[in-house]
Amino acid sequence: MRTDVSHFKCEIVDGIATVALDRPDRKNPLTFDSYAELRDWFRELTYSDEVKAVVFASNGGNFSSGGDVHDIIGPLTKMSMKELLTFTRMTGDLVKAIVNCGKPVIAAVDGICVGAGAIIAMASDLRIATPEAKVAFLFTRVGLAGCDMGACAILPRIIGQGRTAELLYTGRSMDAQEGHAWGFHNKLVPADDLLSEATSMASRIAAGPNFGNMMTKTMLAQEWSMSIEQAIEAEAQAQAICMQTADFERAYNAFVAKKKPVFEGN
Amino acid sequence: MRTDVSHFKCEIVDGIATVALDRPDRKNPLTFDSYAELRDWFRELTYSDEVKAVVFASNGGNFSSGGDVHDIIGPLTKMSMKELLTFTRMTGDLVKAIVNCGKPVIAAVDGICVGAGAIIAMASDLRIATPEAKVAFLFTRVGLAGCDMGACAILPRIIGQGRTAELLYTGRSMDAQEGHAWGFHNKLVPADDLLSEATSMASRIAAGPNFGNMMTKTMLAQEWSMSIEQAIEAEAQAQAICMQTADFERAYNAFVAKKKPVFEGN
Amino acid sequence: MRTDVSHFKCEIVDGIATVALDRPDRKNPLTFDSYAELRDWFRELTYSDEVKAVVFASNGGNFSSGGDVHDIIGPLTKMSMKELLTFTRMTGDLVKAIVNCGKPVIAAVDGICVGAGAIIAMASDLRIATPEAKVAFLFTRVGLAGCDMGACAILPRIIGQGRTAELLYTGRSMDAQEGHAWGFHNKLVPADDLLSEATSMASRIAAGPNFGNMMTKTMLAQEWSMSIEQAIEAEAQAQAICMQTADFERAYNAFVAKKKPVFEGN
Repeated sequence: MRTDVSHFKCEIVDGIATVALDRPDRKNPLTFDSYAELRDWFRELTYSDEVKAVVFASNGGNFSSGGDVHDIIGPLTKMSMKELLTFTRMTGDLVKAIVNCGKPVIAAVDGICVGAGAIIAMASDLRIATPEAKVAFLFTRVGLAGCDMGACAILPRIIGQGRTAELLYTGRSMDAQEGHAWGFHNKLVPADDLLSEATSMASRIAAGPNFGNMMTKTMLAQEWSMSIEQAIEAEAQAQAICMQTADFERAYNAFVAKKKPVFEGN
Repeated sequence: MRTDVSHFKCEIVDGIATVALDRPDRKNPLTFDSYAELRDWFRELTYSDEVKAVVFASNGGNFSSGGDVHDIIGPLTKMSMKELLTFTRMTGDLVKAIVNCGKPVIAAVDGICVGAGAIIAMASDLRIATPEAKVAFLFTRVGLAGCDMGACAILPRIIGQGRTAELLYTGRSMDAQEGHAWGFHNKLVPADDLLSEATSMASRIAAGPNFGNMMTKTMLAQEWSMSIEQAIEAEAQAQAICMQTADFERAYNAFVAKKKPVFEGN
Repeated sequence: MRTDVSHFKCEIVDGIATVALDRPDRKNPLTFDSYAELRDWFRELTYSDEVKAVVFASNGGNFSSGGDVHDIIGPLTKMSMKELLTFTRMTGDLVKAIVNCGKPVIAAVDGICVGAGAIIAMASDLRIATPEAKVAFLFTRVGLAGCDMGACAILPRIIGQGRTAELLYTGRSMDAQEGHAWGFHNKLVPADDLLSEATSMASRIAAGPNFGNMMTKTMLAQEWSMSIEQAIEAEAQAQAICMQTADFERAYNAFVAKKKPVFEGN
C-alpha cells in the first residue's frame, strides 16, 4: 500500500495505516487535491493485505476545518451545474471509499472537526475524541443543506433522527460530552493519549481475524436497507464463508490447547 | 399562508407560524375536523414562501390528549372497514403532510402529549419540552396496536428499537428526563420559557438558508429506506442544486467581507 | 402449545411461557439440538392462542454462553460449505422465528450472555437485566465476523451504528450500565427480582389487547426497510384491522363505564 502521497500525511506501521490532513496552521482544511487523493488512497486500500486497520488522526490539535473557504467554496460559487455535480460526487465518493475499503477506520478527533471533516469522522467505523473535540455539520452556515456526503442517512443511524435534525438545521457544535452520550464518540481520552489510544484500538482490532473484520464492515453497510429477513439470510451466507477460513480453525485449535489464537487473516 | 382556520389556533409572525390545538379545558384532544384541517393546512404550507418554520405549541399547560374518546373513538367502534381505513389514512396523511411540508417543525411539549398528540410531536423535526411533559403512545390502552400513524417506523429511528417496543407494548408514559436522555426531546426548559425557547429555535433556523432547510428536511425523509450508496448519490444531487442558490454565494461573500450572512431563501 | 421439550426448559403459567436453556453448570451453551428445538417451538408459537407473551429466562445465574465450543464449533471446523450454510441458516431461522412468533418476548438477562446467547437477547422485544449481566457479541474472538444471525442489521437499530461497530469489531463485553444507557436493556433489577420483574412485565403486556400486540410486533419488523410513506400506509391498514376487533369496543365501553377494560385478544 503506497504512502507516497502529496496532500495528506500517511504512514504504515505494523499493519496500521495512520493518515491525517496536513495543514495544521489552518486547522487542516480539505482541498480539491486532498479530497481526490484521499478518495484514491481509500479505494486502493480495498486491495491491500498489508493494512489491517486505519487511524484517521488529528494534526496540531485539530481534526479538520472542512472544505477550505478560499480554495473550495470560492470556486464552487462560480461553477456550472455539471461542474458542481462532479464536485459533490467526488466528495461523496470519498465517503463511499471509506465505507467500502474493507478495513476498520478509527477517527481520532481533537479540536475542530467540522463540515467535511465531521463527515469523515462520521463515515469512520469508530471515533475516539478528546474533551476539546467540537464536531459541527455546519453546511447550513455556508448557505447549503445538511444533506452533504450522506449525513442525512448515516448520522441518524449513529445518534438518532431527532438529534441529527437539530445538528443539521442549526449547524451547531456537538461537544465531546454530548457526542459520547449520544453514541457518536466511542470513548473520550485526554489529548495527550489520543493517538496512542486510537492506535491501540486499531491494533486490538487488527490482531483479530481480518477477513472476518472485512466481512463485518461489508455487512454493516450492506444490510442498511435490507429487510430483517434479507439481512438474516445475507449473514447466514457471509458467516458460512467465514467458517471456511483458517482463522476459524486457528481459534478453535487455540481454545482446545488453552492458548490465545494468532490470526492470519485468511 | 392562511391563518383563518376553525379547528386549531394559528398565527404567523416574522415568518414563524405557531399552531396549537385549542380545547385546553379538555387537554386539546383531536377531532375529525381538527385532523382534516391540520392535514390541509400542512399540505398548503408546502407552497408557502412566507412561513420559514413552524412551532406546534402546547395550550393551557398541555400539548394534546390525542383522539377524543367521545368524538372519535365512540364513532370508530361503529364504522365499517371502508370508513375505518378512510379514517386511519386521514390520520396518516397528517403525518405525511408534516413530513413533506418543507419547513422545520418544532414541537413545544408541555404536560399531556399522548396518542395522536404524541404522534404529532414524533412527526415534528425537533422537540422542546418541559419537565412536566408526559409522552405516551397509549394505543394499546384503547385496545389497539402500537402501529399508528407511522410509530413503528419513525419512533425506532429517534429513540431506538428496544425503547420503542417498551413504549408501544405497555403504553406507559415516557417522562421528560427519559425523553431527553433518549433523544426524543432536544431540550428541556421550564414551562414559562417553553414557547419563547421554541420560537427562538424556530427563528434561528428560519434565519438560515430556507431553501437548504427544505432540502435537509426532504432528504431526511427521502433517504430513510435508501442504501448508503443511493443516499450518497442522492445527496450529491441535492447539494449540487443548493450550490446554485444565491444564499450559497451570499454566505461566501459575507465570509470574505467578514460579515454575518443574510439569507433570502433563494 | 407444547411444553414437552427435550433440550430446554419450558413452562406455561397464566398465558406466559417461560423458557430457558438448561445446562447451568456450563452457563447454558446452545447445541445443534437446542437450536433446532427452539426454532421449531417458536415457529409453533405463531399459531398459539394460549401463550400471550414469552419470558426467555436465565438459569443458574447466567443467560447463555452461546454456541458450545466442543459440540458446535469443533464440528463446524470440519464441515463442507453446504453443511455450514445449513447451520448458519438454522441459527438465522431461530432469530426469524422469534421475530415472527407474534408474541412479545422479554429476555431476562443475568450473568453471561454471549455469542448466540447475546443474539437471542437482541432478537427479543425487551430486555430486563441484572447489574451482573455481561453481553458480548464475541464472534470475532472465535475467528469469525460480527455479522451473525442478523447482528449487523438489528443491533444498530437498538443501540446505534457506532456502538455496534465497537462491540462487533472488538467482541468486548457491554456491561449492564452501558446496556441500559444505550437502550439495549430496558431496565436493570437485582438478580433476586429478575424473573419476577420479567414475568410481571410479560403479564402486564399480556393483559393488553393481544391481537394488537401481535400487530405491533409484526409491524415493528415489517416496516424495517419501508419508506416513511409506505410505513404510514401499512399502519393505516394494520390499525384499521385492529379497529374491527372486539377489544377496541371493550376498551371504549369500559372507558364510558369508568371501568378498567378486560381484553380477550379478539
